[in-house]
Formats: sequence, C-alpha cells, structure tokens
Amino acid sequence: MLRGGIDLGGTKIQAVVVDSKWNVVGQARRPTPTKGGPEDVAEHMSEALKEAAQAVGTESGALRGAGVGSPGDVDTEAGTVTQARNLPGWDGTFELGPWLSDSLGTPVAVGNDVGVATLAEVKLGAGRPYDSLIGVFWGTGVGGGIVLNGEPWHGRGAAGEIGHMVIKKDGARCTCGRRGCMEAYAGRAAMEIKAREEHKNGAKTDLFKIMEKHGRDRLTSGIWGRALKAKDPLATKLIDRAIEALGAGIASAVNLLDVEAVIIGGGLGVRFGDPYVERIAKAMKPHLFTDQNPPAMHVAGLGDFGGAVGAALLTTNHKEAQAAKGK
Amino acid sequence: MLRGGIDLGGTKIQAVVVDSKWNVVGQARRPTPTKGGPEDVAEHMSEALKEAAQAVGTESGALRGAGVGSPGDVDTEAGTVTQARNLPGWDGTFELGPWLSDSLGTPVAVGNDVGVATLAEVKLGAGRPYDSLIGVFWGTGVGGGIVLNGEPWHGRGAAGEIGHMVIKKDGARCTCGRRGCMEAYAGRAAMEIKAREEHKNGAKTDLFKIMEKHGRDRLTSGIWGRALKAKDPLATKLIDRAIEALGAGIASAVNLLDVEAVIIGGGLGVRFGDPYVERIAKAMKPHLFTDQNPPAMHVAGLGDFGGAVGAALLTTNHKEAQAAKGK
Repeated sequence: MLRGGIDLGGTKIQAVVVDSKWNVVGQARRPTPTKGGPEDVAEHMSEALKEAAQAVGTESGALRGAGVGSPGDVDTEAGTVTQARNLPGWDGTFELGPWLSDSLGTPVAVGNDVGVATLAEVKLGAGRPYDSLIGVFWGTGVGGGIVLNGEPWHGRGAAGEIGHMVIKKDGARCTCGRRGCMEAYAGRAAMEIKAREEHKNGAKTDLFKIMEKHGRDRLTSGIWGRALKAKDPLATKLIDRAIEALGAGIASAVNLLDVEAVIIGGGLGVRFGDPYVERIAKAMKPHLFTDQNPPAMHVAGLGDFGGAVGAALLTTNHKEAQAAKGK
Repeated sequence: MLRGGIDLGGTKIQAVVVDSKWNVVGQARRPTPTKGGPEDVAEHMSEALKEAAQAVGTESGALRGAGVGSPGDVDTEAGTVTQARNLPGWDGTFELGPWLSDSLGTPVAVGNDVGVATLAEVKLGAGRPYDSLIGVFWGTGVGGGIVLNGEPWHGRGAAGEIGHMVIKKDGARCTCGRRGCMEAYAGRAAMEIKAREEHKNGAKTDLFKIMEKHGRDRLTSGIWGRALKAKDPLATKLIDRAIEALGAGIASAVNLLDVEAVIIGGGLGVRFGDPYVERIAKAMKPHLFTDQNPPAMHVAGLGDFGGAVGAALLTTNHKEAQAAKGK
C-alpha cells in the first residue's frame, strides 16, 4: 500500500512515496516555478510525484492517495488554496486538490504546510513522546505548529503564527509589512534583504560570491551553511541575530503555553541541526519564566522529508493516523 | 446553599459568599498583611470570609465549602502554596487549604489566582459565549489565563505567563529580573518603579501627591485613575506606554493561538473599563497577523469579584461547573 506526499515550498517542491510503515521509498524534488500561475505550479507538483512513483516502479494512479502541504489559506474540504503569496500569480483561489487528483489519477487531500509538517513530527518524528509541543519551522519564514493534548490546535484557522510574535516593538521591518516580528530577524527572506542592504553599505561578506558560484539567485539554507563554515563575518552576525530572535520568540511562546517540547524544523533548522538547536535553547534561557524547567528541544526527526511525509498522512483517516503513532 | 470564595492578592484579600446562582450575597475586603508570614496572611483570609458570612447572617462553618485563588505555585491536591513572592515571608511551602479548612470549619480548595479568575469569566462572565479565549489580568503584574475548547490550558502547570512574553528584546528591566517582558511596561509594580525614577529625575507629576492625600504608600489602580483624570503628564505617558506594550504582547499571543476572544481583567483593567479595552484593541491592530479578523475584546464581566467568585467555583465538581455555564 503506497501513498504520495507533496510539500509545496516557496523554493522547492518535494514529493515522496511512502510505504505502509511510512518509510520514504521514492522521492523527487524540483524548484518551485518563479513565473506563471497556480496551474504551472500544480503541473510541476504532479510531475514531481509521478517521478517519485516511477522511482519505485509504480504510477501515481496506483497510489492509495496523495496529500499536499501548501502555504496560503487552505480549505481542506474543497481542496482549494487561496493567496499563497510566496508562489507566482497565486493571489486568488485555485482548486489545487481537484486539479492534482485529475492529473495524478488518485484522490488528493490538501492541508496547511506547517500543520502537516507538525503532524508528521508528532506521529512519526521527534514529537512522538510528547502530548504538547510547538513545531518551529525555520526557513524562508518562521512557521509554527501547535499540538496540545496530542491534537493540533488551529484556533479559528490561523493559529501558529509564531514568526509574527513581536519580539522587538518598533524593531526591524518584517516581510509581512509589520515591525519587530521574530521573522523580521530570523526568516531567510528577511535575512537576505538585510544581507543585501549591509553588503551594499560595504559590509564584508562572501555570501553573494558563494551564491553565484553555486548558480543560485537567492541565499538558500545551503549558501548560509557554507558561509558560516567559512566564518563569513556578515553571515555569522546575521545568524547570531536570528538565533537571539528565535530564543526570545520561542521562549515567549513557551511562557504562554508551557509545552513539553519544541521541535525545530524548516530548511535552516534541519540543515543546521543539533548544534544550532542547542544555541536556540541557550538563547531562550534568559527569557524563560520557569527557567528551571525548560521544554525538551529537538531537531525535526524527519528532516527535509517531514513536510511531504506529513502530507502523505493526510491520506489516512484519524484511526490510521493514531495507529501510525504506535509504529 | 452558600459557598465562600477568597481572592488572595498582593494588595488586598477579597472574600465573598455566593448563593446557588453564583450571585454575591456577602463580601468583605481587607488589605493583605505586608509583614509576618503565611499564617498571618491565612488568619486575615479566614477573618475576611467569616465577616462575609456574618454579613448574610451565617457562619463560615455552615458554608458548603470555600475556595481560594492564590498567587505562587499551587498544589491543588495538597492545598499547599509555595513561593508566593508578593506575600510576606512566603518563600517556602504553606498548607493553606488545610489551615483554612480548620479555621473556617468547612472544606477549602485552593487554585491559582489567575486560573480561577479566568474560570469565573468563562463560566459566569464575559467569556461565556466563547470556546477559546485569553484572560489578561492587568494589575500589579500582568497574568494570563488560557481557555481552549472550553477547558483551561495549564501546560505543565505554568502556562499563561503572558506578562513575561518578550515584547522588546533588551528592553526595560522587569520585576522578574528579566528584560523586555510585557509586564516590565504594563505591570503596576513596574510602572510605579518607573514613575518614582522619573519623578526623582524631575518629571512633572502629581501621582505621589495624590497617593499621600489618599493615605496610601503605593500607586494603586485608584491613584493611577485619579491622576489620569487630572491629565497628569507622567501618569498619561506611562499608561500610554503600558497600553502599547499590552497591544504588542496580547497581539503576539493571539497570533500564536488565534482565540475567539480576549477578556481584560485585573485591578487596572476593571477600573479603566471599556474605553481602555478599546485602546488596547487599537494598540493590538498593527501587530495582529490576521488583522481583518481580530478577536472579540471584553472587560471582565465579574469585575473586582471575579477572582473570589472563581475561587468559589472550586468548591463545585466538574458537572456543577458545567451547569453554571448554562445559568
């Protein structure tokens, strides 16, 4: 019994095929189109999952179903995605689920990207031992997934915007237009804007040389990683600043919710791994109200595949997902 | 069927007797002792509830039971309170429940002060229409109570520290010793420290004259209210600053949890009422991620008695409390 999962990110599309034990048995990845509209994006998503299916000698139509983790406003009933602002021409509503279902020949369920990645960690990853946790997805932006009493908490549908908690009133301008959000300091998009600004003003850095050398046009997690390894002064300064911001913001969330654990995922979180999770934990300490009893801190256990595997979990009903936890 | 409730605050002890419809039929209030130890405080609590019982022509021993809302670390099973830092000599653990039970001649249940005040608002006050809300108790400090799916959320026991969410990293020193907490700008204790400092440095204010005129030694909610009415420049400035801080902090909490409603209680919140709740809502707006869909905002419906009535709710079992909601 094989299932498909697609993680639709602002930078890349990750497709996986998983077996009945939720092991990834096939995968394919491609860059997210930067031009066109929702249908072009959907076309690339479909191709990626077809490729992942071929890699295990099957076809997408033979999958039990497929799930998608998407940014933007997701209507899970209708399978539509509205205003996915990081994606090209996606200001309106697009019937992503039905479109993909036609193209792939299997039922497709759509969920929120951060929500499914958190679900994957809770059911199959680093969150398995805990009943309450916050998933922090540190990438282009900083997304948050909340699990309380073993169940996701969505509020009125928009909960989890941990990246837009205010950590410095009247502080740095965020990509959302507001000021002082955690994401204004820690989101990769905001860090890139800051890096370009400081570079233009004469700050010493090889960030953009490394970017060009690797044929990129943005500062990906990999570029940041390489620059840090080379002790690039600007990269070091901006990542230090990001960690301080994550420390203050995550500690604030923990002061409010007192969860058992915090799981750090996302492009930067997964790439930087344990040493950086330890640095974030250290940066949280001065702000934690019950600092004698900090939450457990973990890197996302499913790594880069978390979002796609979480999307595949959408193809199960509630009982199956519960059983997955007992795996 | 009468019940008792005692709200133990840093400034005052409020005792009430409620009837079976949770109406306050008797009450007594006295200042919290500033010297001595836990037993002195308990003595005053006992006297206050006995006085409230006498006011309705009964004795404390005839009450069905009594509840206490206390600061500090509360062990609800044992009825003990540990490290109630705003109270005199209360660094250790004191068996408040058993002590009061002996003194009053009726069973006494002990709960967290903010928790019971939130419970009262949910069951009987402004929170009745909502399944999810945050109670913000704006007084000496800034406490928070969280209700999700109609149930209080306590985390590992320390949830709700909304006052210690960081709204200005590296900002003002908080009374908790940390920096940049919301309470460092909005808590009455922190505001008084700031006011004394600015007054000493020559800032123009009648705050301390008004305080002396009313025979007080601290800046109570009433003193702040009078100074604002007289358009005192320092009082106006510091309250404006507090409202900005509350706006950023509460918006951050809403960005994370996306609750239906926010209830503003506490000494300052109740005294200042609706116009100030509107000001806080306006201060939240620039920080709310889904600013088209802000939460409902209300003043605590039970006013000054909320904590004591919430404490009385501790004497009911779960079913009775549910029934209270249908009142």
